[in-house]
Amino acid sequence: MAKTASISTGALEIAERVRAGDVRTTARLMRNLDDGSPEAVEVLRALFPHTGNAYVIGITGSPGAGKSSITDRLIAWYRKQGKTVGVVAIDPTSPFSGGAILGDRIRMQDHALDPGVFIRSLATRGSLGGLSRATADVTRVLDAMGKDVIIVETVGVGQDEIDVASLAHTTVVVVVPGMGDDIQAIKAGILEVADVFAINKADREGADRTERELRAMIELRHVTAPVDHDKHHRFTPTGPATARGEDYSWEPPIVRTIATRNEGFDALAGAIEKHREHLESAGGKLAREATRARMEFLAILRERLVRSALERIAREQGALDELAARIARKETDPYALAEDVAARLR
Amino acid sequence: MAKTASISTGALEIAERVRAGDVRTTARLMRNLDDGSPEAVEVLRALFPHTGNAYVIGITGSPGAGKSSITDRLIAWYRKQGKTVGVVAIDPTSPFSGGAILGDRIRMQDHALDPGVFIRSLATRGSLGGLSRATADVTRVLDAMGKDVIIVETVGVGQDEIDVASLAHTTVVVVVPGMGDDIQAIKAGILEVADVFAINKADREGADRTERELRAMIELRHVTAPVDHDKHHRFTPTGPATARGEDYSWEPPIVRTIATRNEGFDALAGAIEKHREHLESAGGKLAREATRARMEFLAILRERLVRSALERIAREQGALDELAARIARKETDPYALAEDVAARLR
Repeated sequence: MAKTASISTGALEIAERVRAGDVRTTARLMRNLDDGSPEAVEVLRALFPHTGNAYVIGITGSPGAGKSSITDRLIAWYRKQGKTVGVVAIDPTSPFSGGAILGDRIRMQDHALDPGVFIRSLATRGSLGGLSRATADVTRVLDAMGKDVIIVETVGVGQDEIDVASLAHTTVVVVVPGMGDDIQAIKAGILEVADVFAINKADREGADRTERELRAMIELRHVTAPVDHDKHHRFTPTGPATARGEDYSWEPPIVRTIATRNEGFDALAGAIEKHREHLESAGGKLAREATRARMEFLAILRERLVRSALERIAREQGALDELAARIARKETDPYALAEDVAARLR
Repeated sequence: MAKTASISTGALEIAERVRAGDVRTTARLMRNLDDGSPEAVEVLRALFPHTGNAYVIGITGSPGAGKSSITDRLIAWYRKQGKTVGVVAIDPTSPFSGGAILGDRIRMQDHALDPGVFIRSLATRGSLGGLSRATADVTRVLDAMGKDVIIVETVGVGQDEIDVASLAHTTVVVVVPGMGDDIQAIKAGILEVADVFAINKADREGADRTERELRAMIELRHVTAPVDHDKHHRFTPTGPATARGEDYSWEPPIVRTIATRNEGFDALAGAIEKHREHLESAGGKLAREATRARMEFLAILRERLVRSALERIAREQGALDELAARIARKETDPYALAEDVAARLR
């Protein structure tokens, strides 16, 4: 192992202020991390040993399922228990990300004034795969800040979004009754990351049917061979320390909620708590931490490699746009060019 | 420019068979590309000079909007015009990807038996950002195969999915009436890539309101400054050859369709054709080709760099899982580790 750069006194001081709960310093740090500041990364490295205490909950599901309302109610629920809460909103339709209709946004103001709650929204249109890295960074900062619970809210459709969900200790998949297509989408990818299902808007027609369909899918999970994600260096929901079989011993509970009326949140929080106990008793928490670490490492490495490659291209081979134009004019092909750039980096 | 590896005779022969329309060879090539075979990449490089003739149409929108039905109807429409069609389906809910309800899947069989149609589905859960690369590869192969029109169907929510949409010459964003959340999601990212809007299920209540909302959003686009995607090395919908202002001279038409009844497809195909003419007359086609080339190059470079980094890690530093476990145990932090790995690659 090569020795890594030591952390400056300045970075250590900023880290101390973040750990003391200084909101301004924390907000500035998050902005600087977004801008790719090397100093901010130093602070993050200083914070790293003080992380791992927060419980991370992922909230995912299709647009319109009510993820933000559920996040909102969960914040209130945990606050009532005296817990501090961090929120990372990556859902473009989330009021936390500024994408909500007026009524919602006003409601969120309650939390904005609560010092026990820190909300950070991230754009879904980030850098090259930088969404996973940015989410991991913000989660670590909130963790080091001492937040007891961190809620990561994300649209559960894209592949990066599913990666983000796998950052969580407990992932809640939100569905609504009567959306056949939603169930299809879940089948296609989200099922594997679901630890708890919430049927929101449960007063709508079709809730029974949705629950039956979910139960059938969960049953199927027992007989279906797990997908070999690693074939593509994929972040898997289970770490190596957890045998696949062990993970399947957890049967995702199905909880019904009506977020608009604040109904079902004792049950939802209870289901999350049960999963937490299951993880801890089965040694799964460390495995999830390893998965999280793996995802963070790969996201950082990927961004790091591409960033330095692009800098080098800009220095040595002219602007990226000129390279693209050469490909478009068929003077070269993208594979040859990528090979050439990679060879020069060596 | 360093010289790049020459292409073997074997690869050239396979490329010839693909260009001659050999379905088996093409299907095998696509599988081999998925598996990361270096020989398959050689074939792709041999095919590259013969690409750029197909017109690429992106179909995107939320789950449940009816993208697959629209794709289905467009295939039929172009076939009636005597055009050959390639389809790349990346939508997990698409019947083309095997995710459909029975009725849909049976309907698709029509095209499966038509030699003028080649359909390839891709898993959304690919490699590290490999979705863009895989889509670009398949599109190039279909292009070299001589398909006149290539339809890329993708869920328009995740960031990779939006990138994929930007591969297209014309991107159709599908919305359905009465889904306020959809409009929110569109606001948040898809609007910028929309060249044509299709209001599908237009017989549903609320179609007028949806159209009004879309028109208002398009109006706003004129007064809103374009987002600086390049800050994060983002793939922009417009290439450098196109002035930003020029691109905004295209006002996305709004077309109503009822895919289940095959209504509105002359209008939709007409709107696509009009955009094609606009692109060609304004010199925008070359700019889009450059954007496509840029996206392909970055996707390939990214995957290439991460793949070789991971191989090196496996050789020199033990399994990735062991590294992740060390981070989880707080023996190191992911930034230090990524820095270390990147330094060793140099």
